[in-house]
Amino acid sequence: MAPKELLLITGNSNKIADFNAILAPAGIIVRNQAVDVPEIQGSIEEISIAKCRKAAEIIGGPVIIDDTALCFNAMGGLPGPYIKAFLEALGPKSLHLLLAGFSDKSAQAVATVGYCQGQGHEPILFQGRIDGTIVPARGNMQYGWQTCFEYGETGQTLAEMPDVEKHKISHLGIALGKLVSWLNHLDDRVTDTT
Amino acid sequence: MAPKELLLITGNSNKIADFNAILAPAGIIVRNQAVDVPEIQGSIEEISIAKCRKAAEIIGGPVIIDDTALCFNAMGGLPGPYIKAFLEALGPKSLHLLLAGFSDKSAQAVATVGYCQGQGHEPILFQGRIDGTIVPARGNMQYGWQTCFEYGETGQTLAEMPDVEKHKISHLGIALGKLVSWLNHLDDRVTDTT
Repeated sequence: MAPKELLLITGNSNKIADFNAILAPAGIIVRNQAVDVPEIQGSIEEISIAKCRKAAEIIGGPVIIDDTALCFNAMGGLPGPYIKAFLEALGPKSLHLLLAGFSDKSAQAVATVGYCQGQGHEPILFQGRIDGTIVPARGNMQYGWQTCFEYGETGQTLAEMPDVEKHKISHLGIALGKLVSWLNHLDDRVTDTT
Repeated sequence: MAPKELLLITGNSNKIADFNAILAPAGIIVRNQAVDVPEIQGSIEEISIAKCRKAAEIIGGPVIIDDTALCFNAMGGLPGPYIKAFLEALGPKSLHLLLAGFSDKSAQAVATVGYCQGQGHEPILFQGRIDGTIVPARGNMQYGWQTCFEYGETGQTLAEMPDVEKHKISHLGIALGKLVSWLNHLDDRVTDTT
């Protein structure tokens, strides 16, 4: 059986709520534990793998982690994994100004969820990417950079979409969908060999 | 006696040349070793301390490391330690466009040199900060972001200044001056106790 409970390494209550909202229909409950895991500099994948491996080592058992990136195409994917620092420094209302000097306002929102069985196991990554356009902030400012990310052709920022709708199409929704498929596939493989 | 030879953890030959040019008058020779030390995300000081500690642990003896940051005041100090990624993504000629949406073009160039005696010893940091203005790139493009940093009231970017002049006023010159003073002070303390 795929695990019905996952341990997410975070102290962010909004993140836990999002994970549970998306994973509840798959019958998965997400608990959380706040652990101080230093993040390295590097690509989204390098950062996620290092974080997941370290978290599993500290916890001594299965964990999931996530990393969120906002990638501006005009900047070769930056701020990318450093978006949190830029959001803290500028706030949602000034974030779009980073692209004022560039005509290409296109961007990708990227969620990378890592699963690691425990110390010595290789982390496995599940990634969701969606395309959008960087715009002046609209919607609930508590949603941070999602106020500046107009999704696809909808004319709505992620922060203007109802949560239920957003989770169906979002970077995190896609990443967690892949995680669920993989967990279910684990079940199939177990069934195949019995 | 202060060490007359320091081991700088880097594979960058330009950096070694700069260190030697600045430290030669103090009678210090800099050797180097290229070691892959992952850098964490965080403040300049957190990154430098973690890198220095890890390098000393790997080498098993005294090391120096350095971290370079370019801090835009309009962005609360960012890109800061992430400047290398932004420079790689944008190139020197587009770097100033990051500030196109901001009226405050002021910036600080920051060099942080860390010294660690060896495993289990606390790293000590020596920092040089200079004020300037971000401008469209001028000077030798091989100098990277220094082409965009107009120093103080000189009207010259760091990349337009002769190396000898630059080293007298630069962020790295100041940081290494502090290192030399500290090393000499170690000598004084040894002398005092004999």
